[in-house]
Amino acid sequence: MNTAEAINRLNDLELKEFAYGHAMGILSFDDETVAPKGSYIPRGKTMGVLSELSYKLTTGDEAMGLLDWLKEHVDELSDEDRRRVEIRDKRSRQLRAIPVEEYVAYSELINEASNVWREAKNNSDYKLFEPYLGKIIDAQKRFASLVAPDMDPYDYCLDQYEEGLTQDKCEEFFGSLREHIVPLLEKIKAAKPIDTSFLEVSFPVSAQRELSKKLMELEGLPEENCILGEVEHPFTTGFSKYDMRITTHYYENNFLSSMYSVIHEGGHALYDMHSDDRFVFTSLEGGVSMGVHESQSRFYENIIGRSREFVTLIYPELIRLCPKLAAHSAEELWRAANVARPSLIRTEADELTYPLHIMVRYEMEKAMMKGEVNTSELPEMWNGLYKEYLGIDVPDDKNGILQDSHWSGGAIGYFPSYALGSAYGAQLLAKMGESLDVRETVKKGDLKPVNDWLEERIWRYGCLYKPAELMERAFGGPFDPKYYTDYLERKFGEVYGL
Amino acid sequence: MNTAEAINRLNDLELKEFAYGHAMGILSFDDETVAPKGSYIPRGKTMGVLSELSYKLTTGDEAMGLLDWLKEHVDELSDEDRRRVEIRDKRSRQLRAIPVEEYVAYSELINEASNVWREAKNNSDYKLFEPYLGKIIDAQKRFASLVAPDMDPYDYCLDQYEEGLTQDKCEEFFGSLREHIVPLLEKIKAAKPIDTSFLEVSFPVSAQRELSKKLMELEGLPEENCILGEVEHPFTTGFSKYDMRITTHYYENNFLSSMYSVIHEGGHALYDMHSDDRFVFTSLEGGVSMGVHESQSRFYENIIGRSREFVTLIYPELIRLCPKLAAHSAEELWRAANVARPSLIRTEADELTYPLHIMVRYEMEKAMMKGEVNTSELPEMWNGLYKEYLGIDVPDDKNGILQDSHWSGGAIGYFPSYALGSAYGAQLLAKMGESLDVRETVKKGDLKPVNDWLEERIWRYGCLYKPAELMERAFGGPFDPKYYTDYLERKFGEVYGL
Repeated sequence: MNTAEAINRLNDLELKEFAYGHAMGILSFDDETVAPKGSYIPRGKTMGVLSELSYKLTTGDEAMGLLDWLKEHVDELSDEDRRRVEIRDKRSRQLRAIPVEEYVAYSELINEASNVWREAKNNSDYKLFEPYLGKIIDAQKRFASLVAPDMDPYDYCLDQYEEGLTQDKCEEFFGSLREHIVPLLEKIKAAKPIDTSFLEVSFPVSAQRELSKKLMELEGLPEENCILGEVEHPFTTGFSKYDMRITTHYYENNFLSSMYSVIHEGGHALYDMHSDDRFVFTSLEGGVSMGVHESQSRFYENIIGRSREFVTLIYPELIRLCPKLAAHSAEELWRAANVARPSLIRTEADELTYPLHIMVRYEMEKAMMKGEVNTSELPEMWNGLYKEYLGIDVPDDKNGILQDSHWSGGAIGYFPSYALGSAYGAQLLAKMGESLDVRETVKKGDLKPVNDWLEERIWRYGCLYKPAELMERAFGGPFDPKYYTDYLERKFGEVYGL
Repeated sequence: MNTAEAINRLNDLELKEFAYGHAMGILSFDDETVAPKGSYIPRGKTMGVLSELSYKLTTGDEAMGLLDWLKEHVDELSDEDRRRVEIRDKRSRQLRAIPVEEYVAYSELINEASNVWREAKNNSDYKLFEPYLGKIIDAQKRFASLVAPDMDPYDYCLDQYEEGLTQDKCEEFFGSLREHIVPLLEKIKAAKPIDTSFLEVSFPVSAQRELSKKLMELEGLPEENCILGEVEHPFTTGFSKYDMRITTHYYENNFLSSMYSVIHEGGHALYDMHSDDRFVFTSLEGGVSMGVHESQSRFYENIIGRSREFVTLIYPELIRLCPKLAAHSAEELWRAANVARPSLIRTEADELTYPLHIMVRYEMEKAMMKGEVNTSELPEMWNGLYKEYLGIDVPDDKNGILQDSHWSGGAIGYFPSYALGSAYGAQLLAKMGESLDVRETVKKGDLKPVNDWLEERIWRYGCLYKPAELMERAFGGPFDPKYYTDYLERKFGEVYGL
C-alpha cells in the first residue's frame, strides 16, 4: 500500500461512516419533526442495526489496520490527513473500549428515553423519566471508566463536547462570570423596570413563518441547502454542507422566542455548512466542538440579533407582519428584547441570566457523575439551585428538571459549552471590531462582511484544529472571559441606562 | 444447525434487511416531503452505501448458505417459514443475477433521475429528463436479460409488481374493459351533463387539513401509527405496522383532489399495517403486490369514498368547513364527484376513464421495453395515444408524459396494477355484499365492519399467499373482470340516470 492508496481507503471508510451517520441522523430528524408516536418501535430496531454497523466499521480489523498503517506513515501525510488520523485514533480508541453489545444497548436506550422524556415532560411526571435518567448516568459512568479510566468521569463528559475542557477550567470560568453577573443583576433590579408586556402581542404563526424566511435570508442561509422544520425543542442537524436543517417552535404570543431560535440555529447551520469543500464527507467536515458551535449560534442570536442595530433593521418587517407592534418604537422593542430577569426556562432566558441556568446544570451533572446524589433527589436539587442561583421557585418538573431534552439523549457535559460559546463570541466580536465596523454593517442590513470574517477565521477550518487552537488563532491570542463580562456590563449598562 | 437456530438466523437477517430498507425509505420520505434541494448530493452517497450493503446482505455467503440449508430442510418448516424461503429464494436469485456495481449505479441513477424529473416537469422540459429515462429503460432491459433471460422483458417488469401478471393477461383484461367502457362513455356523452363548476369553490387549505383528519379517523387510521405528509405527488410508504406515512397535496380550488387522495392512500396504509403480528420485521409483513395494494386503495377511494352513502355522510362536515358548498345538495355533490369526462391527468381522472389512462401507459411501456420506440419519440406517442384512447389533445409534456413520477423512480410495469386493483376491488365488493350490507354500514358512518372483513380475508395475510391465490381465497372463486365492468355500468347508469 502506498500513501495515495491508503488515503483512498480512508476516504471510502469515512464516506461509509458518513452514510451511517446520515441515515441515523435522518431517522432522528424525522422522529423530532413528523414521525408518528408508535414509530419508536421500528426506529429502535433500525438504530440498533445501524449503530452496530457503524461501531463495527469504525473499530473493525480493516479500519484498525488502515489506521495503524497511517500512524506508521504519519510523516508522509499532509496536515489535513494527519488530523484525520488523530481524530480517528481518538474515536476508535474510545469506541473499542466499549463492548459492542453495550454500545448497541445504549443506542436503543437513548431512542426509548427520548420518547419517555417527551411524555414525562408533557405530564410533568419526573418519576416516569427517572429510571431512564438513572440508566443513562450509569452508562456514562461506565463508558468513562472504560474509555478513560484515569480521567475524572465528568471531565471525560466535558471533553466529549469541548476537547480539553475540564471542571477546573469550568470552575474558574463560572466563578469569574458569577463575580460580574451577580452585582450587575443587583444594579438592574434597582434600575427602572423595562416594559415587556407588549411582546405578548398576538403574532399569527403564519406571519411568524414569513418572518423566519426573512431572517434566514438576512443571515445568509441558502434555501437550496437549508430548511426550517417545526419541533417542540429547536435544534440544528446537518448532513454535509449540502443539507442543513434548522428548527423552531412557534408561540402565537411570544414571537421573540421563535425569532431568536431561528437566528440561533441559523448560526449553527452557517458554521456547519461552510467547511472547506475538500472536507466534505470526511471527519474534518462540520463544527469542531459544541463550544465553538455555540459561539457561532449565540454570536448571531445575542451579539448580532439582540443588538440595537439589528432590532432597528428588522423593526419595519415586524410591524408589517404584526401591525399592533407599531404602538411601540424600535428602541422600546430593543430594550424589551434585552430585559434581564431571572426566569424558569433556559431556552427563553435573557443573555445575562442565561449562564446561571447553565451553572445549575453544571452543578447537577457534576453531582450525578460523582454519584453524590440519587436520581430521586435530582428534582429537589434542581429546585434548590434555581432558588440559590436565580432566586426563583420552580412550580413543577415540567418547568424544572424536565425542561431540556439533552439528558434524555445522553448529552451529559454539553451544557457548559453554551456558556463557553457565549464568552468565545464576545471575544470574537472584539477581534472582529479591529477590522470591521460591525454595528454599521448590521445597520445597513448586510451581514455578508460578518459571515465572511467568520468563514475566513472559523468556519472553513471544519475540524482541522482543536477547539482551543482554532479560537486562539481567531482571537490572535489566548481566550479571556473578560471580553465577555466587559461586553455584558457594557451592553446591559446601555439597555438599563446604568 | 437445527431448524430453530436456522429460523433465528433468518429472523436476524430479515431484521437487518428491514433496517436497511427502513433507513432508505426514511431518506426517500424526507426527500419527498421536506429535504432541501441540494440534499440530493449526500443522499445519493448514502443511498449508494446502503443499497450496496443491502445487496451484499441478501446475496452474501452467509445468507445464501442459510437459504440452502432451509431449502434442504423445507419439510421441517411451517407454511409461513416455507413461504419466507420462497420469497427469499426469488429475491436472491434476482439480485445475484445483477452485478453489485450495476445495482449500486442504478440506485444512484434513480436518486438523480427523481430530482431531474421534478425539475423537468416543473419546466415542462422533456429533453432534460429524456437521457435519464433512456438509462432507466436500458437498465430495466438489462436486468430483465440477466434475471430472467427466458422471459419477455416487459413480462418480467409486470411480474415485479404483480407476481404472475403477463402481457397476455393484460391484453385480455384491457380488451374486455375497453369493450364496456367505450360504449358506456358514448352513452354518457349523450346524457345530460353534470354540473361540476361548484367543485372549484375556494376551500381553505387549513380547512382541508381538518377534513383530512376527519377522513383518516373515519377510515380507521390510528394517529399513533399513521401520519399525513404534504407532497407534490401523493404516495404511501411504511416502516412496519407501527409507522405508516400517507401523503397528499392541497389545491385551494380542488378540495376533492386531496379528499380522495387521502382516502386512497389511507387504503394502502390500512392494508400494510394490518399484517399478522407474527410477520413484523420479516419478509411476510406488508402488502403482497401492487395489484392487491391498489385493490385496497381504490376500493376505499372509489367504491366507498365515491358512493352516494359516503358523500352524504361527509357532506355536513364539508359544509361546516366550507359553508359556500351548502348551495348544493349532497346528491349534487355525489354526482359531481362521479362525473365521467376524458381528461389529461391520471391522478385526477374519474373512475370510468381512469383505466384508459392506464392503457396509454401500458402501451408506452410495452413499446419502450420492446425497443420499438426511441426516447425522443415518446412524447409524440403519448400524445397520440391520449388522442386515440381519450379523444383529447395534450397541450404540453408537463400535462403529458412528465405527469407521473413512476418512471423516474424506475417503476416500469407498475401502472397495470392500478387497473387490475380496481377490478379486484369490484369483485371484493360483490363478495362482501354476501355477508354485509355495505351501503348501510357506510351510511351509518361505521367503516369498522368493512375494515374487519378486509382484515380477515386480505390484510392479515401479508405476503403469505401469492397475489392470485390470496384473491381467489377472498373471492371464493377465480378472478373475473365482469364484476368490475358490471359495477361500472351499474354505478354510472345511476349517476347519469341512463
